[in-house]
Amino acid sequence: MDMNTRVLELEKDTKTKSLVIDTDVHESFGSLKDLVPYLKEPWKRLLEGGNWKGFSTDFLYWYNPTDWTSQSVSSYKRTQTELLDEYDIRYAILTGYFYPSMLKTQREFAAALASAYNDFMIENWLEKDDRFFGSIQIAPQDPQSAALEIDRLASHPRMIQVMLPIDFKAYGDPYYHPIFEAAQRNNLKVAFHHTTIAYSGLGIGNYSIERHMNLPQLTMAMLTSLICNGIFDKFPKLGFIFLEGGFTWAPHLIWRADREYKSLRAEVPWVKNLPSQYIRERVRLAIQPTEDISAQEWMKVIELMGSDEMLCFATDYPHYDFDAPTRALPAGLPEDIKKKILYQNAGKFYNFMNKKE
Amino acid sequence: MDMNTRVLELEKDTKTKSLVIDTDVHESFGSLKDLVPYLKEPWKRLLEGGNWKGFSTDFLYWYNPTDWTSQSVSSYKRTQTELLDEYDIRYAILTGYFYPSMLKTQREFAAALASAYNDFMIENWLEKDDRFFGSIQIAPQDPQSAALEIDRLASHPRMIQVMLPIDFKAYGDPYYHPIFEAAQRNNLKVAFHHTTIAYSGLGIGNYSIERHMNLPQLTMAMLTSLICNGIFDKFPKLGFIFLEGGFTWAPHLIWRADREYKSLRAEVPWVKNLPSQYIRERVRLAIQPTEDISAQEWMKVIELMGSDEMLCFATDYPHYDFDAPTRALPAGLPEDIKKKILYQNAGKFYNFMNKKE
Repeated sequence: MDMNTRVLELEKDTKTKSLVIDTDVHESFGSLKDLVPYLKEPWKRLLEGGNWKGFSTDFLYWYNPTDWTSQSVSSYKRTQTELLDEYDIRYAILTGYFYPSMLKTQREFAAALASAYNDFMIENWLEKDDRFFGSIQIAPQDPQSAALEIDRLASHPRMIQVMLPIDFKAYGDPYYHPIFEAAQRNNLKVAFHHTTIAYSGLGIGNYSIERHMNLPQLTMAMLTSLICNGIFDKFPKLGFIFLEGGFTWAPHLIWRADREYKSLRAEVPWVKNLPSQYIRERVRLAIQPTEDISAQEWMKVIELMGSDEMLCFATDYPHYDFDAPTRALPAGLPEDIKKKILYQNAGKFYNFMNKKE
Repeated sequence: MDMNTRVLELEKDTKTKSLVIDTDVHESFGSLKDLVPYLKEPWKRLLEGGNWKGFSTDFLYWYNPTDWTSQSVSSYKRTQTELLDEYDIRYAILTGYFYPSMLKTQREFAAALASAYNDFMIENWLEKDDRFFGSIQIAPQDPQSAALEIDRLASHPRMIQVMLPIDFKAYGDPYYHPIFEAAQRNNLKVAFHHTTIAYSGLGIGNYSIERHMNLPQLTMAMLTSLICNGIFDKFPKLGFIFLEGGFTWAPHLIWRADREYKSLRAEVPWVKNLPSQYIRERVRLAIQPTEDISAQEWMKVIELMGSDEMLCFATDYPHYDFDAPTRALPAGLPEDIKKKILYQNAGKFYNFMNKKE
């Protein structure tokens, strides 16, 4: 059964009013202590002893108190009720909210944390509801151990991608190739999501609002890193999804990258195709946070992108700037485009029903 | 006489076929030694003694040999012939190609270099052809001396702006306020242009093509820095032009900044208006390097920007990716939009005929 048939099956199968695939749901633990049972020694006793306090930020979060929910830890039960049931979400892809990638020293500890987190997540989330699909968390600062972790968990029927947290690492660098090799040999997708370490080319800025405005630039920079270092060419089966990094910049990046490629491709002879081709065919962008634009503006952006298959719906649940599927898309957007964004594009990209069955 | 009348006068006045204002022309010296006569001691004897080799790059430039010209030093005579006469450029704004901003230590030396460069440029460029207008080069790492340098030169009839080179400094930071104060009290514009130190949020990348693709992100990040730190509010008379940083990302940045502002403005109460308003009213973007897009795509981008007064023509002469006025705009672009881009928008923004007379 090919994917288009499967998507049609999905449409027949469901009894929900709105058929939605949510590509960015942040599951979490209650506290770091929840990871202790899943850790190996010596990390287990050290974490249990309170020798590490977890990640913090260089800024104070500043939420608009009128927003839908607070930045709270989500339990699977609350997520079932508040998200899956409330909004008829057919599949929710869990993307984590704890990224050992951010640890600047002690890569072995980072790898142990990732591994413990994955086991915690499988037991406490994936096994609780079959609408949940998962991302394999890794410590990319140690690509060899990351590849082993990917191999260890890829056979889980609802693990569908490797998570590469965006902090200060340009993952196009050949140093990280073992991670892409492992994702490709296990037929997984690769997902990118920023962390709390998220700078622009001018640094972190003076206020958290600057960081929020600048986040999409990290997705743009990561795409150029992947393209120019030949990741699309070296790993031809891989697909890439960028979460929470915006999408209305895509026409610009496509055009700019093509212009520079035409002018300077002699420097990167391993890049065989125009950047626009890699991006349109193999990159997907989750739409949360959507910008406040009209249906006409949405359509113009999609036309300028040159593809209506790149955008995938996401809520970013449970964060304060959550986009409900009932509100994320403006009135007046054509029905076929709505369907593509709400589930068809993600359904095709992940092809995850194959994996589930 | 108001500015619109002046632009009409300009149209009547000229005998040229194409009336063009070029907002980004890179004048230069032949070698560092050219600055020696303009330097004070002890810098004069140290530079004369060869104690500093000038700026270099962390990469090898990689030019497409089929391009229009090589990355050569331009003399004013060659610029007159190859650029002004050849393409009927009515006014060319000189923006420099030597940015003491990049010096990471010895700010007093940087300030002395900027000052010497300005005197060199006035004598060897501005005074040679009255089609040239100039930018005051400064060492922004020392804002107090930069402000003195601005005050020293602002009365020159063809100095129309302060140049803020984009490297790793977020100029919205209050540390740099004395520069904006000096620009405002002298009725100058502020221009931004990247330097060879140009990173993305993920660093410099592995190849120079990555840097070329990522350059616009620095303009985006600088805009958010200026907005969130209240530069538009604190210096209400200032106008800002961004050179060589692209423009097709502008709809995205406008929408994203407005969304974040609506959500997080409590953090920056000194920012009184929507970012979109500051950008549309007081920011101008030079169009070089233009991307390879059709007239229809140009028009969609301009519509999505919400203003047809933001884009200004630039050649980037004499660099390898020079955009000729005869080729930069695609066939089929409406005549009124062409005129706005080629000279009306820059004419209104700079209002520089007032200064000249």
